[in-house]
Amino acid sequence: MKKPLFIGADIGGTTVKLAFITHEGHITDKWEITTNRTDNGKYIIKEIAESIHNRAAVLGLTPDQLTAAGVGAPGYIDVENGVIIEAVNLGWKNYGIKSELETLLHIPVIVDNDANLAAGGEKWKGAGEGADNLLAVTLGTGVGGGIIAGGEIIHGESGLAGEIGHITAVKSEGAPCNCGKKGCLETVSSATGIARLGREAAEEYKTGYLNDILTESGTVTAKDVFDGAKKGDETALKVVKESSTHLGFALANLANALNPETIVLGGGVSKAGSILTDNVIEAFKQFSIPKIAAETNINIATLGNDAGVIGAAWLARQKTTSL
Amino acid sequence: MKKPLFIGADIGGTTVKLAFITHEGHITDKWEITTNRTDNGKYIIKEIAESIHNRAAVLGLTPDQLTAAGVGAPGYIDVENGVIIEAVNLGWKNYGIKSELETLLHIPVIVDNDANLAAGGEKWKGAGEGADNLLAVTLGTGVGGGIIAGGEIIHGESGLAGEIGHITAVKSEGAPCNCGKKGCLETVSSATGIARLGREAAEEYKTGYLNDILTESGTVTAKDVFDGAKKGDETALKVVKESSTHLGFALANLANALNPETIVLGGGVSKAGSILTDNVIEAFKQFSIPKIAAETNINIATLGNDAGVIGAAWLARQKTTSL
Repeated sequence: MKKPLFIGADIGGTTVKLAFITHEGHITDKWEITTNRTDNGKYIIKEIAESIHNRAAVLGLTPDQLTAAGVGAPGYIDVENGVIIEAVNLGWKNYGIKSELETLLHIPVIVDNDANLAAGGEKWKGAGEGADNLLAVTLGTGVGGGIIAGGEIIHGESGLAGEIGHITAVKSEGAPCNCGKKGCLETVSSATGIARLGREAAEEYKTGYLNDILTESGTVTAKDVFDGAKKGDETALKVVKESSTHLGFALANLANALNPETIVLGGGVSKAGSILTDNVIEAFKQFSIPKIAAETNINIATLGNDAGVIGAAWLARQKTTSL
Repeated sequence: MKKPLFIGADIGGTTVKLAFITHEGHITDKWEITTNRTDNGKYIIKEIAESIHNRAAVLGLTPDQLTAAGVGAPGYIDVENGVIIEAVNLGWKNYGIKSELETLLHIPVIVDNDANLAAGGEKWKGAGEGADNLLAVTLGTGVGGGIIAGGEIIHGESGLAGEIGHITAVKSEGAPCNCGKKGCLETVSSATGIARLGREAAEEYKTGYLNDILTESGTVTAKDVFDGAKKGDETALKVVKESSTHLGFALANLANALNPETIVLGGGVSKAGSILTDNVIEAFKQFSIPKIAAETNINIATLGNDAGVIGAAWLARQKTTSL
């Protein structure tokens, strides 16, 4: 038999990321297809299977080389049965993608939430390599998260575990969040939240870098805030401090309860680099038990867009082999 | 063979609680011995083994009836090897109690932190019966905690997981905590913390039930605060509200991340009953994701002092039988 491979699939609202990955976690081939949202996404799984078959044929892979597939999807998932309870972005509701994909691929398929698999990827081959206790936070348009404890993804009672973005960061008079409550971490630490804080600060202080940007372009982005902070603009620095303190507070309180080895910060906002981590770490140390403050690593994610497919392969490996 | 039994042992600073427990979780016999702290606690394990042998002989148990022992101890523990890294109250440091007790009892011994085992007890036979995802909080002199996720105790990287009492509840100008930081949940939701808040309120308002108590007895206890609140005293109600809001906030944020089925409140403070839970639940609902607010149970612990030994037997069962 040729070298055995896992399939990793990361289904997003725009594209599906696909990869063949060795049992050691190396990507041998990766590609994307467009997510076909026609008719409530009923073609997506079929097109994933077709694309995998075509790619395998082109690469000359033998059928017995592909040992199992891991699939990440957004939304609420019954991971035990591989059923998507609801994925609003894709139009899926109570959809058994595990059974459909197993029928099409003739190999075991393991399904989990995409944020959980990004955590699994960073744990296997990324910024938390080898960590059996890890928190991963994705700071993008929203704030997502995945928790690994004792080497296993934590799902909670209804598959909602890891919703780090909806930890209440601003206790009183917080901004309203899509989830229905106020002051969620997402309202202050996502790209959207940081942009909002930046715009509000520009409007309040009416001077400085952010105000210039606002006047010129009519808007302020999270990147503008970090750019301003790097240039030493006081208002921008204040916004970075405010956002980072909320994030450090939320992460410290999770770490006080979960004692992770490593916390990984990913997503677009994490590209800000050390100006983000320095401020987050400062707040983290203030709000965490001294031993946890001293021992917990806070790292920027290293796998970028590959985290999902690598995490999917990690989960397929964990659930289908004896390691 | 007669009915097989587990041994449950819960080692505290004053007494060691011991029990024989069926494989279904019923205590058939329980007793206590004094914790002998002479010479850094070097006799404790020997005296536990002796006491078990004596009791078994008195009850006419046959040696093969006792299948495994679970042991709960305070402090930091290497659970994999059954080594107490440090238990200040007992004088233990780097002490391999698993191997010593296995040599004395000739059966498998499983060791874990006492707060984790109290969570296990409430999960097996108490207020969280059957919950595979559970938070247990002990509101006593301090605030302890145990987390069960996916049916397993969460230990974290250094065995510190579950330190719910040191979640930062008061973000700025919080009272100093023994752990070295400020504003820990323990400073506002333990019996000690509630008493402090009650005393401060009595001194501030100089009138009402708590002030009368303070003037008469020179001190205010947590029980005084709850008694006053039940009588409708405004200052006492305000203190209960303040303490419960901090607790509800901390629990909501943990639940947002962990999605437990049930949260169990135990320890002396939990005897206050519904005046505590009503206020905690109100805050919990304010700070948790709507679906989590709707689905999470918050219950008062039901096992009292038996939680530790029952949890010890639960762990012995989990780790030594195929269930």
